[in-house]
Amino acid sequence: MYKMNEKIESMYCIKCGEKYTVGDYFLGCPKCLEKGENAAISFQYKEAIFKNPSMKGMQKYGRILPYETFPTLGEGDTPVVKLEKMAKLLGVKEIFIKNEFQNPTGSHKDRMSPLVVARALELGKKGIVAASSGNAGISIAAYAANAGLDCKITSLPNVNMAYKTAIEATGAELVIVDEADDIAANGRWGYMRKMVEEYDWYPATNYILPAVGSNCFGVQGYKTIAYEIYEEFGDNLPEYIFVPVSRGDLLWGIFEGFKELLKLGYIVALPKLVCVEPFRRISKVLEGEDYRKEFPGECSLTASIGGSTVTYQSYVAIRDSNGFAVDIPQGNVIDDVRQMAHLGLYLETSSAVVFSALKRAIEKRILDKNCRILIIGTSNGFKNKPELF
Amino acid sequence: MYKMNEKIESMYCIKCGEKYTVGDYFLGCPKCLEKGENAAISFQYKEAIFKNPSMKGMQKYGRILPYETFPTLGEGDTPVVKLEKMAKLLGVKEIFIKNEFQNPTGSHKDRMSPLVVARALELGKKGIVAASSGNAGISIAAYAANAGLDCKITSLPNVNMAYKTAIEATGAELVIVDEADDIAANGRWGYMRKMVEEYDWYPATNYILPAVGSNCFGVQGYKTIAYEIYEEFGDNLPEYIFVPVSRGDLLWGIFEGFKELLKLGYIVALPKLVCVEPFRRISKVLEGEDYRKEFPGECSLTASIGGSTVTYQSYVAIRDSNGFAVDIPQGNVIDDVRQMAHLGLYLETSSAVVFSALKRAIEKRILDKNCRILIIGTSNGFKNKPELF
Ligand SMILES: Cc1ncc(COP(=O)(O)O)c(C=O)c1O
Ligand SMILES: Cc1ncc(COP(=O)(O)O)c(C=O)c1O
Ligand SMILES: [Zn+2]
Ligand SMILES: [Zn+2]
Repeated sequence: MYKMNEKIESMYCIKCGEKYTVGDYFLGCPKCLEKGENAAISFQYKEAIFKNPSMKGMQKYGRILPYETFPTLGEGDTPVVKLEKMAKLLGVKEIFIKNEFQNPTGSHKDRMSPLVVARALELGKKGIVAASSGNAGISIAAYAANAGLDCKITSLPNVNMAYKTAIEATGAELVIVDEADDIAANGRWGYMRKMVEEYDWYPATNYILPAVGSNCFGVQGYKTIAYEIYEEFGDNLPEYIFVPVSRGDLLWGIFEGFKELLKLGYIVALPKLVCVEPFRRISKVLEGEDYRKEFPGECSLTASIGGSTVTYQSYVAIRDSNGFAVDIPQGNVIDDVRQMAHLGLYLETSSAVVFSALKRAIEKRILDKNCRILIIGTSNGFKNKPELF
Repeated sequence: MYKMNEKIESMYCIKCGEKYTVGDYFLGCPKCLEKGENAAISFQYKEAIFKNPSMKGMQKYGRILPYETFPTLGEGDTPVVKLEKMAKLLGVKEIFIKNEFQNPTGSHKDRMSPLVVARALELGKKGIVAASSGNAGISIAAYAANAGLDCKITSLPNVNMAYKTAIEATGAELVIVDEADDIAANGRWGYMRKMVEEYDWYPATNYILPAVGSNCFGVQGYKTIAYEIYEEFGDNLPEYIFVPVSRGDLLWGIFEGFKELLKLGYIVALPKLVCVEPFRRISKVLEGEDYRKEFPGECSLTASIGGSTVTYQSYVAIRDSNGFAVDIPQGNVIDDVRQMAHLGLYLETSSAVVFSALKRAIEKRILDKNCRILIIGTSNGFKNKPELF
């Protein structure tokens, strides 16, 4: 059995700052929710010691996670690789990639799942439910199976076969809903809400609109990416970190990890977080549009970073790190996979678009050619649909 | 540029013991070859220090590899995960898995490719050629692309789409030959031989019959799996290591790594190496049949460990470690993938069959229920054909 980390001081709203006792806030900050200003809740910790060198993988940082220990499949400790050819090709000083696709189920989502599972186990839940067209579903299903918890993943009819096979192999039920309107009773989020509120299943992902983000215990896991980047580079961090973004859980986790490092004095400045998106969504919010709007756009080739919603957490992570957003049209996607594979990195489309994103940022002179860049390689290419190539 | 490790003392034949100066012996030991007793050649090193803690991944062990440094995509340092549910299910003391599928291209082959590439670069070769229906091809193609070397992978017409897409995305040419007889001029090995002998390309895999195994610089990379297992367990090693086997490069590399550890006094006994094969092939050789025969058998669902040949290196690794072989019929394969996925591990069919192998070994009482077992999880399940599930 897993026990919550006693070093948690409180939870807090990332928008209004309100403090809360530790608990599950699936719909985000209750106070903001009342005002229709949906926003995520996060954790504050008492202690400054952030590393336990006797542990491995993510558990090395258990002291600053909601659970110090949790079921593991070997997540975390992903390598950072220097991409000299890419730097030369694009004419920038240094480019690195953090190979999150080397996690157990082939994506960064494996940093979220063990914490969600630990929480579900502590609460004695029977099963976990998640809405996902892909990597989150694969990861949650695997970790739930490993922990002996039931699992239901709700998805849309066009679900990629590679994902479907991986999810169902674990014994999880793939619940296909054919309603595009997520929060409708027969939509993905409507289904989740019912499972949570009527059947007491534990939710791993968002089910409210405007979206707030995934389970806040899980999102904490992404902080470990920032810690590992710090381990790798010390305080000589890359100036920019390129992150493919959908709901911004990953982006927020990385941001919060670096903020903690800054607060503890390990680093002197935050790296600028660059959001890579399939069409102008967060880009519009950064220009002043309301984050709670619907932003429709074409993203069938990059479904993993698709969706028509923006979260407040994405906005804050970019704004407060002095980052920016780059949108990559669908026409670039297949070539981006090839470009990255020509450097030895076979990535999922939604990851590979960092190639175009970097190129664009350089062309538009949004970033200095003399800078050092890290890209997050979120998922492997074996999940791509072969028929697109 | 990469320079060969100066601590190499000599090369030697694993069968007749003949010593050789360092070089490329693509057809194995010349002396044995003359007698038609094809066998692989390996390396002996001068020094006992085997770890450089300031390096990461495989390069930590560069001092006892043919190249101390080599191009990297983040291979090695794969996690070992304890499988408590599986141990309970099968009624044995402890089971662990080493997640080789968490390597950059999703298989253990990534421990071979960087050394092959380093050698090709030192020799100034234009390109690398390999015969592979799968993981070796994906890995070699990625590492060659990363190093700026041309690459040709020769394969059969029934090549899995997931593999084909991954190989071609790197820019490598996939050369489909439709001759089942590998060494014929228009077979896979005939094609390779021509590329090597007439066009001076560098070979990563075997092209002779009886087969000797892959490029001997590359095979050395698999030793690092043994070193990492030692790092994990110290001299309290698991008694049995289950390894899916085709040509036995992986098996031999693990065996040789442990033999070195034994010789250097780090461990007191070799773990028993258990070969998992799709039909009785090495099993027959262990019973006395000639390793140079053809052993036809059905293996379409587990093509990665298919093939009708046995190598001398596989035989020695099993014999000298007091191991054994288990053959798993094709009828078990799909269920094995599900069984492992139900434990959280979604593996390629050729990896997942360790589940049945372990079960069989227990049922047949070939292994003691009170023992500790490590399985090598060679490749991830995203390479499975979805239509089989
Ligand atoms: C491959 C890939 N990259 C990036 C993301 C972005 O994650 P997030 O929803 O946390 O922004 C996801 C998941 O949704 C993904 O699957
Ligand atoms: C998934 C998988 N497992 C095991 C093996 C066995 O490798 P070897 O040919 O070294 O015996 C291979 C490669 O051939 C493979 O692709
Ligand atoms: Zn609030
Ligand atoms: Zn010999």
